[in-house]
Amino acid sequence: MALRWAHAGHTVFIGSRDADRAQATAAELGAEVGRTLQGGGNVQAIEASELVVLSVPYSAHTATLEELKSVLAGKVLIDITVPLQPPKVTSVNLPAGQSAALEAQSILGTATPVVAALHHVSSVHLRDLGHAIDCDVLACSDDKAALEQAMALIKDLGVRVFDAGSLRNSIAIESLTPVLLHLNRAQKGRSVGIRITGT
Amino acid sequence: MALRWAHAGHTVFIGSRDADRAQATAAELGAEVGRTLQGGGNVQAIEASELVVLSVPYSAHTATLEELKSVLAGKVLIDITVPLQPPKVTSVNLPAGQSAALEAQSILGTATPVVAALHHVSSVHLRDLGHAIDCDVLACSDDKAALEQAMALIKDLGVRVFDAGSLRNSIAIESLTPVLLHLNRAQKGRSVGIRITGT
Repeated sequence: MALRWAHAGHTVFIGSRDADRAQATAAELGAEVGRTLQGGGNVQAIEASELVVLSVPYSAHTATLEELKSVLAGKVLIDITVPLQPPKVTSVNLPAGQSAALEAQSILGTATPVVAALHHVSSVHLRDLGHAIDCDVLACSDDKAALEQAMALIKDLGVRVFDAGSLRNSIAIESLTPVLLHLNRAQKGRSVGIRITGT
Repeated sequence: MALRWAHAGHTVFIGSRDADRAQATAAELGAEVGRTLQGGGNVQAIEASELVVLSVPYSAHTATLEELKSVLAGKVLIDITVPLQPPKVTSVNLPAGQSAALEAQSILGTATPVVAALHHVSSVHLRDLGHAIDCDVLACSDDKAALEQAMALIKDLGVRVFDAGSLRNSIAIESLTPVLLHLNRAQKGRSVGIRITGT
């Protein structure tokens, strides 16, 4: 995503608990796309940004949000986390709060509107700039303005994006990922996606 | 579905609590497709069938299964029920048992393998025999043989059907329906569907 957003002209700041690693990745992607990406610690990345994309394993989800809650106030959070339960990643796992995004909104409160999106687009397809992505994005939120802002950004990845309703619908969107991972097995490792038809 | 299966050469028996109404519908569809469909009470319909398709509002789901449990023993049940909570049908509702199909399997026990499928195909598209259905079907079950039998039948509706894994994945499949109903609103009443890409 960082690669594609930088390529589309957005200012990208990659954050990580390991600031050196974030800087190295930013430099690598910057060289590839011919633009400057910044890298650093999570707090620095959030402070520099209007929209923040959270991409962590579910096991680190709650702790990351609790740690960064105060600095996230006033930002829009796009949460792409899927509550997978390794090694059973092809079977739906409902967390205590029913979805990772609902848990995020509950932790962050009204100061940070949460948008759930981007759970189904394969990193392999995103990584290849010359590749047209044959997968639609379903995005949902309880904050209409945040949803519109996030959808405009997501569109610039080169995908179609749909307003999928209230944040509660993240239960459906997140839990579709284990189903797609199950379908991948029958495709010998190729990554399947979804398209909305009839639009 | 009855219309399309009869058209494909399958023997179809429509069951209802109201046997007269089932017979009238069977006669009407039979005239349309130029084949004989049977109609009658639910017990009679189940006794005459190898595979049983359950299509009831979620509010009648548990009571219907408990009433018909003994006669369903030895049959494969295809459960298309979505646990919608009217009037909020565009928002995910997780039932106590996490999905209608998991609840069905819990009520029926091992005597009746449950397959969850056919939640997303619009009845409007099914009703028009000349219409190619632009929607894939995701089917899941904990019984591999029952799943294969159901998938072969579903294919004869004129759709692609995918093995979506264990019955637990019905949580994802059922809960996608409120999302599609939300998307329909933006499409001015037209029915959207889903396609799996990258296969």
